[in-house]
Amino acid sequence: MSKVGFIGLGIMGKPMARNLLKAGFPLTVHSRSRPPVDELAAEGATPAATPREVAEASDIVITIVPDGPDVEAVVRGSEGILAGAHEGLLLIDMSTIAPATARAIAAEAAQHGVHMLDAPVSGGDTGAIAGTLSIMAGGDPADFERARPVFAALGKTITYCGPSGAGQTVKACNQIVIAGVLEAVSEALVLGMRAGVDPAIVLQVLGGGFAQTRVMDVRGPTMIRHEFQPGFKIRLHRKDLGIVLQTAREVGACLPGTALVDQFFGTLIAQGQGDLDHSALLTVIESLSGGPTPEDPGHE
Amino acid sequence: MSKVGFIGLGIMGKPMARNLLKAGFPLTVHSRSRPPVDELAAEGATPAATPREVAEASDIVITIVPDGPDVEAVVRGSEGILAGAHEGLLLIDMSTIAPATARAIAAEAAQHGVHMLDAPVSGGDTGAIAGTLSIMAGGDPADFERARPVFAALGKTITYCGPSGAGQTVKACNQIVIAGVLEAVSEALVLGMRAGVDPAIVLQVLGGGFAQTRVMDVRGPTMIRHEFQPGFKIRLHRKDLGIVLQTAREVGACLPGTALVDQFFGTLIAQGQGDLDHSALLTVIESLSGGPTPEDPGHE
Repeated sequence: MSKVGFIGLGIMGKPMARNLLKAGFPLTVHSRSRPPVDELAAEGATPAATPREVAEASDIVITIVPDGPDVEAVVRGSEGILAGAHEGLLLIDMSTIAPATARAIAAEAAQHGVHMLDAPVSGGDTGAIAGTLSIMAGGDPADFERARPVFAALGKTITYCGPSGAGQTVKACNQIVIAGVLEAVSEALVLGMRAGVDPAIVLQVLGGGFAQTRVMDVRGPTMIRHEFQPGFKIRLHRKDLGIVLQTAREVGACLPGTALVDQFFGTLIAQGQGDLDHSALLTVIESLSGGPTPEDPGHE
Repeated sequence: MSKVGFIGLGIMGKPMARNLLKAGFPLTVHSRSRPPVDELAAEGATPAATPREVAEASDIVITIVPDGPDVEAVVRGSEGILAGAHEGLLLIDMSTIAPATARAIAAEAAQHGVHMLDAPVSGGDTGAIAGTLSIMAGGDPADFERARPVFAALGKTITYCGPSGAGQTVKACNQIVIAGVLEAVSEALVLGMRAGVDPAIVLQVLGGGFAQTRVMDVRGPTMIRHEFQPGFKIRLHRKDLGIVLQTAREVGACLPGTALVDQFFGTLIAQGQGDLDHSALLTVIESLSGGPTPEDPGHE
């Protein structure tokens, strides 16, 4: 069984590392903060002081950290993963970062003889805990096959997407659709509410037809109750849309709907609401419309 | 069994009228063009020369015509439905028109002692033929109960949405979401394709997770093959978005995403492509991006 290293024991990383332990992988862990390292160590993992130590002790190193610069920080430098590089080391970055950054890090890793997969996930902390994440991987097919047993301990739907960066590209596509659907559902609910229709009826009818979306199935009922505890935080979705829009610039894609939602997420962050669930996008459309109900101002 | 009248034997109306005949309703039919009237008459319906004659012969009259002015034309005037009004006549308009127009016609009908439901449908000609339409009704609850046996012959999901106009409002919400989802899926596919990822992989991954939408389940595969035979024609969806945006003005709702798609549907119509399926929205995003693939211009 491969010796696995795990770097980044956050909301996603900690339950993922725990699932690897449960699956029987010998596990070495490292994180910026000490408490989750101690917690995993108490459950059987070996703590490591630096990413370099993790790499030295492992056949496969998984990273899941907030953003591209964080990945670069754990990969590079005298205490980074590449400083602990050895023949056959496979690096699997499961963070959501820009496809271009993923390719650049993979190229640098290759110079140290280290193979790399980009393998971002979706499914949230619930999926991380349950081991039912959706994993979308880019890189060499042989490396993907080598990673399969590890992926199988973490996720349910595991897809090889193409060469290096392809996993991140598909994750970017995923975040585009979720953003656009949230916008569409928000606009439909606001029109319906301001026209005096019970929003529960709107959810019921739309959910039974061609307008059905999983976003509305899951979030519609909480949206109409204005329950916006995350879930997936606005500031994280906006970080992802930053990656989307930067990638769109690089490949020459025009994404006007996505750019619009990006701006509205920015509005929510400016209002100090970046830690709410992204479905709070509804409140932007409500505000732009003078409020959620016909009694509020805004009627011409 | 109620005597039913049916006005408007178009792509939707003709199979709906046929389902009423099959269900055993005595049926009187009228349409602007003669051939479908003759066709239904050969199957057992009674042809009528005017909407007035239809009303005179019926307990319940169903109308399904292209737009608000068409409904007004068959309701008003010396040969209109109201000219044939009698005690207990129930008018069910199943066209997609503005909620405000539906309410105005219902108020006028009430002055003639005629009850009215607005009951637009979704599900397309396929649903009309199969008798599996989704029907969303507004009006008096007692009238809705009276219409139930007729609705049961036409549709599967039948929902009372609220007072007069509420059915049209929910239909407007439905068209908002479908438009927004088409935009989001188009943007995701274009980013993915221009970044060099197989769009079939994008559909597969997104369809298995939180980004799942019925629009993409049904139309995604045809979109990536650029098969845009309708389906639901762009010019009809744009007509509906005209209703949506006019209603938004009236109730004070701000719908920037919907307004964007409305403009892009306008682009397609200006290009002479209004009779394509609305999923051809993809081609607008492709054009704005210089083409669908990384080899096309547009890369910075």
